[in-house]
Amino acid sequence: TGGCCCRLFSQYETPRQVLVRSRRVGVVCRLIQLGVLAYIIGWVFIYEKGYQSSDTAVGSVLTKMKGVGYTNVTGEERIWDVADYVFPVQGDSSFVVMTNYIMTKGQKIEKCSELYPSCLFSVSHPTPPQGHMTGKCLVNTTKMCEVLAWCPVEDDSSIPDPALLMSAENFTLFIKNTINFPAYGVMRCNLVEGIDNQYIKSCLYDPKTAPLCPIFRLGDLVQMSGFNFAAIAKVGGAIGIIIDWTCNLDHDQSDCKPIYSFHGLYGNPDEADTARASVGYNFRYAKHYMEDKQEKRTLLKVFGIRFDIIVRSVARKFDIIPTLTAIGSGVGIFGVATVVCDLILLYLLPKREFYNNMKFKVTETMEKVSLHQTVA
Amino acid sequence: TGGCCCRLFSQYETPRQVLVRSRRVGVVCRLIQLGVLAYIIGWVFIYEKGYQSSDTAVGSVLTKMKGVGYTNVTGEERIWDVADYVFPVQGDSSFVVMTNYIMTKGQKIEKCSELYPSCLFSVSHPTPPQGHMTGKCLVNTTKMCEVLAWCPVEDDSSIPDPALLMSAENFTLFIKNTINFPAYGVMRCNLVEGIDNQYIKSCLYDPKTAPLCPIFRLGDLVQMSGFNFAAIAKVGGAIGIIIDWTCNLDHDQSDCKPIYSFHGLYGNPDEADTARASVGYNFRYAKHYMEDKQEKRTLLKVFGIRFDIIVRSVARKFDIIPTLTAIGSGVGIFGVATVVCDLILLYLLPKREFYNNMKFKVTETMEKVSLHQTVA
Amino acid sequence: TGGCCCRLFSQYETPRQVLVRSRRVGVVCRLIQLGVLAYIIGWVFIYEKGYQSSDTAVGSVLTKMKGVGYTNVTGEERIWDVADYVFPVQGDSSFVVMTNYIMTKGQKIEKCSELYPSCLFSVSHPTPPQGHMTGKCLVNTTKMCEVLAWCPVEDDSSIPDPALLMSAENFTLFIKNTINFPAYGVMRCNLVEGIDNQYIKSCLYDPKTAPLCPIFRLGDLVQMSGFNFAAIAKVGGAIGIIIDWTCNLDHDQSDCKPIYSFHGLYGNPDEADTARASVGYNFRYAKHYMEDKQEKRTLLKVFGIRFDIIVRSVARKFDIIPTLTAIGSGVGIFGVATVVCDLILLYLLPKREFYNNMKFKVTETMEKVSLHQTVA
Repeated sequence: TGGCCCRLFSQYETPRQVLVRSRRVGVVCRLIQLGVLAYIIGWVFIYEKGYQSSDTAVGSVLTKMKGVGYTNVTGEERIWDVADYVFPVQGDSSFVVMTNYIMTKGQKIEKCSELYPSCLFSVSHPTPPQGHMTGKCLVNTTKMCEVLAWCPVEDDSSIPDPALLMSAENFTLFIKNTINFPAYGVMRCNLVEGIDNQYIKSCLYDPKTAPLCPIFRLGDLVQMSGFNFAAIAKVGGAIGIIIDWTCNLDHDQSDCKPIYSFHGLYGNPDEADTARASVGYNFRYAKHYMEDKQEKRTLLKVFGIRFDIIVRSVARKFDIIPTLTAIGSGVGIFGVATVVCDLILLYLLPKREFYNNMKFKVTETMEKVSLHQTVA
Repeated sequence: TGGCCCRLFSQYETPRQVLVRSRRVGVVCRLIQLGVLAYIIGWVFIYEKGYQSSDTAVGSVLTKMKGVGYTNVTGEERIWDVADYVFPVQGDSSFVVMTNYIMTKGQKIEKCSELYPSCLFSVSHPTPPQGHMTGKCLVNTTKMCEVLAWCPVEDDSSIPDPALLMSAENFTLFIKNTINFPAYGVMRCNLVEGIDNQYIKSCLYDPKTAPLCPIFRLGDLVQMSGFNFAAIAKVGGAIGIIIDWTCNLDHDQSDCKPIYSFHGLYGNPDEADTARASVGYNFRYAKHYMEDKQEKRTLLKVFGIRFDIIVRSVARKFDIIPTLTAIGSGVGIFGVATVVCDLILLYLLPKREFYNNMKFKVTETMEKVSLHQTVA
Repeated sequence: TGGCCCRLFSQYETPRQVLVRSRRVGVVCRLIQLGVLAYIIGWVFIYEKGYQSSDTAVGSVLTKMKGVGYTNVTGEERIWDVADYVFPVQGDSSFVVMTNYIMTKGQKIEKCSELYPSCLFSVSHPTPPQGHMTGKCLVNTTKMCEVLAWCPVEDDSSIPDPALLMSAENFTLFIKNTINFPAYGVMRCNLVEGIDNQYIKSCLYDPKTAPLCPIFRLGDLVQMSGFNFAAIAKVGGAIGIIIDWTCNLDHDQSDCKPIYSFHGLYGNPDEADTARASVGYNFRYAKHYMEDKQEKRTLLKVFGIRFDIIVRSVARKFDIIPTLTAIGSGVGIFGVATVVCDLILLYLLPKREFYNNMKFKVTETMEKVSLHQTVA
């Protein structure tokens, strides 16, 4: 009677169930179900916050070093300020602070001699010569080759020890970090509420007493990354500064604060012991000038601490989709619990035969079925 | 009869159900089920595209500035071209365009005087002196200390106003951005179909008329980020340029186009009012040279606009796994709908007693059960 | 008898089911269920490793170039070492190796002439003039304008061909990459087990024989990215080096090794044919010096290969949450299989009428129900 659609709306099907009146079965199965429920609510929802969606931020980092270094090499006093010891100068999130150097002054392009295993061909590997081999071996010298190079060639056989710019330990680093969670329209800066101009003028980062101060002493940074300053200053190294933003945007935005952590990337003196490759960090840098109408340069082999500022961010906020997905998936797991209970009921209990009869109604083989139907 | 496996394949179990012939229950329950179905299909599948997997891209950004600046400071005319006002020069995704500067010419390392609160110890904080304190106070002057420094020391007490390079407003920025979705083997460039050499020669980005032109006028960029050019040019600031690639790869690849957006990161004049720290953006940069056999340098305190080009990308494509996961989860939620209907049926309806009897078959207590079985 | 909670624990409900004893139905439905099971176990668990959670790494990249270039331009021999041909010098993950250049020596700020379409206004677009227009047209010359500029202005109408630094082909690049999976507390370096100081001294990357050697020959890099070295060296280009860390942390950590891959980003000569914009890669760079008390500079238009080192990382490890989510979702899909089987049973089979009767117990219309109940 009525259309198919009409019929659909005038009835409702619900599974028929057996109510097993047994304390033993009841307790076991309820406990299993409770466990599943506790897992879904406690773990997925409360601990893992499965009712929230998450988004990562796009961010921007500015840095600024402060401090003046002083060196006195064989009577020559020199001053190193920010424009001299930071590479690059413009305050990137990845930069190098020079702590030691080998300076070769007054280089110009000409022919001079360099000690090298073979003077015949320019071998690119493992350590190339500093100049272009002319192919000539200089008289009366073994393996002393004539090269066209920036002469005099650099002699980096010994690294100044202690590092020339040990005073870098007291330099300070100021970090400014802005992040933006576009999915939630939230923008945060590491100068959070309460970190004003006044506070910044006097604070210094300390993991316990000033965990939000964005000004870091280089010596502290090195120590917190597990390095020894004297060692890293001599040969150079790399330190990662991780700014961790883990924000629960269901709470107030002002609870969304950065956590700084520090870890050494290279230059660990322990690594040196294990004969692993490439300890330290250095690069070459030249300042060009003209003298007597001739181009000259001062070559610096710079040993320094490289800082990589890495921003990790995740914001979480209530969202209906993951909530329903978690519920749906939870109901599925609930179904697994029912299956487990049924297996116990139907295969392990002494009265399993009886429960089987209660749960299942068997369609007889075809002949019997017809008979059965006729009888009914 | 037959093996367990054979028996398994010769039968099939399906839940027995009660068909409740009630228009009221039917309508309510069907509506709940329809709602769930609409949610799964409409929201999860159509709106959130739950049948697609997603991947983010790896990308590369090149930039190129164009334009020439001109300054006339007390009669000295100067020209600033790309090699002078962009830091770094090589066209990175993060770079600074100089808009203002304080130039200190002819610095050399010697002893001179600097005004500082205390001449006894070199305090690293809050503002360190520009040189290395010798510990001497100069005669007849209060707090005028002798320092070993690049002398004369910089006087940055007043910033040129208006900014010296106000002409930077007309500089143009060209962005080239290539992204690669390795999971789908798709590579896209912001010079999409139709953006050819001819078009680039004459176009200028405009959010409405030319949203795909990769050439931006600096003045427009600043304005679109909500800044005032004169203000940001004077003290410096930072602007984020977000290139958003949201691609549905089930459609044609040529529909995958970048969307540019702009937002100010620092230097907002409004921030200044709230006494928040560190307005503006500046860094120091030195050009070294030799004069009369002595090393000298020209120090520039550079105020500029820092641009951070941030690429956000997500590509989506049909994938069987998320599709089936969404369906599976949806079936689970459907199960929740059934539970809700059952609750209404068994606890809220007037005939709930009757429906309870229909739905549940109760196993009697053990004695009765035995009796029941015997009787049957 | 007893409280609601007590009653809940002393009983357990399980669905009543029809056991359909039919080989045809059994085989079809079991096959469908087996298919779903195979999908869940085989695809979700084994192939997609749905029992694992995943995390991406934070990483840091250091690079170091080696090799010396030699040029002989009209009799002037020059040597180019790392400090000269790498931009920036400090070994970033994104850097440029100069392969060709146009050098303009001895520029100073003065008035000179430049060929330009119009001498009246400084048009910022499409190619701005190199200097600041004074507005004067020089006598007897068409479109030869007087400009205040770094004079003599650069003439970049012809690019040196072949590239001046073709020897860059033999330069080598050393990459050091450390990654950190904070969620699993795992840190890995591309100098994995077995890649020691000794090996690095003599190895050269080769995709087959030395896939873990972190030293790359520039010529090989260019070739592996599908470029022609002579072409890219002349006009410049960009190459992406992708370091792929896909780690299964359920296995031993030492199995977590990087895979290098290379692809060209710009400068593809094929692109040139399609008249797409901006082939090649170049930037301008100036070295300032003082001569006769006057500031001068050497301008270099640098053509080079830009390398972007991109780290992609994903680590996977067994986690209970995705395991249970996958199971829960799988049970849901199992439910879909049951629905499909039921549809076959109830609508397609010849005996559907019979199965319908077995499966469903219909509540009669209200009057009949009362009657029925009374009779019962």
